[in-house]
Amino acid sequence: MQIESLKISYFTVYRLSTYLRVLSKLDRSRVGTITSVEIGEMTCTPDTQVRKDLAYFGQFGKSGTGYDVKKLKRKISEILGTRKIWHVALIGVGSLGRALLAYPGFKERGFYFVAAFDIDKKKIGKQFNKIIVQDMRYLEKEIKEKKIKIGTIAVPASNAQQITNRFVDAGVECIFNFAPIRLKVMKKIRVRNIDLASEIALFSFYLKNKSW
Amino acid sequence: MQIESLKISYFTVYRLSTYLRVLSKLDRSRVGTITSVEIGEMTCTPDTQVRKDLAYFGQFGKSGTGYDVKKLKRKISEILGTRKIWHVALIGVGSLGRALLAYPGFKERGFYFVAAFDIDKKKIGKQFNKIIVQDMRYLEKEIKEKKIKIGTIAVPASNAQQITNRFVDAGVECIFNFAPIRLKVMKKIRVRNIDLASEIALFSFYLKNKSW
Repeated sequence: MQIESLKISYFTVYRLSTYLRVLSKLDRSRVGTITSVEIGEMTCTPDTQVRKDLAYFGQFGKSGTGYDVKKLKRKISEILGTRKIWHVALIGVGSLGRALLAYPGFKERGFYFVAAFDIDKKKIGKQFNKIIVQDMRYLEKEIKEKKIKIGTIAVPASNAQQITNRFVDAGVECIFNFAPIRLKVMKKIRVRNIDLASEIALFSFYLKNKSW
Repeated sequence: MQIESLKISYFTVYRLSTYLRVLSKLDRSRVGTITSVEIGEMTCTPDTQVRKDLAYFGQFGKSGTGYDVKKLKRKISEILGTRKIWHVALIGVGSLGRALLAYPGFKERGFYFVAAFDIDKKKIGKQFNKIIVQDMRYLEKEIKEKKIKIGTIAVPASNAQQITNRFVDAGVECIFNFAPIRLKVMKKIRVRNIDLASEIALFSFYLKNKSW
């Protein structure tokens, strides 16, 4: 199986990621096998879609008995690259930034914050979740030395593009953006935007109009 | 124009929400008019899509001169229901929950946390961003009294479904879910899932395979 040559959509990757979460949980509860119908129920995915996604990466399951939880978990981890450790940088150690540093879900998937930066002199030198906040001037140095490929932006929109440019110039390839702004990046850079305010704004439309 | 009868996709609502953000910013900077091309550039949306979205709700712009920023902003606010104040409840006052309470983007859109709950006895009675954390037993009472229609879940996956059921039974219609689990709800309930760990997991796939 040549993963390198696969062109799969990020929707598939996202679904695999949710299957992995369920499988990890089952494995911790010592469940040995699971069917595509059960995976589907636990992730709100049609079971036909589950089978299609898994078949995409080779023959995992046995008809009738289902999938071996441990094996399937290992295989998906391998495909997603979550068996590796990835270094992550954070810019902006406000309330959202600190919540991200403390969030256990990242470490579970192999993502470790190894550097944090802020422009606020009062925060520089302070420690949050064992990470010492540094002056922005060390951004490039830290990214290169610690081989950081993922940058997390938790600053106001007005500073986000400039930080993105510095990230990319220093070697960051993936940006996790919490600033409410669309970032301009080269095509090879991957950005995931989490715009909490726009997400919640959907609800007001629904509550007002009872449709969307 | 009968908004009530409109059946529009949540993708459209989401885009309108991003236009609104840009328009609010322009209005604060005292910019008077804007073209669909400019809105498109600022939100990374094709300008044909911008014009289509806006035309959907009536004739806003003038050919050649563009849109009146103030008028367009008011109109979209009205459509999205963000000119109203919405009451929001939070369950789970951990690091993520506290970041959500402190997040200024919600208030800007008219969403106010008016109640917060936790099972941790040490947190109950404490105040975060002027909200006093309450015992879970008062959940139903608070939701009814304060006419809360939006519930935010920031607890571990294992408790999320039970809380969802209590929310819905008490009258909540929209759920903003940060627990890494797909919630089972009636069709008329709207759920937005923010699964931070699954989002970041997409990056490991990309970094490993250079595709998605």
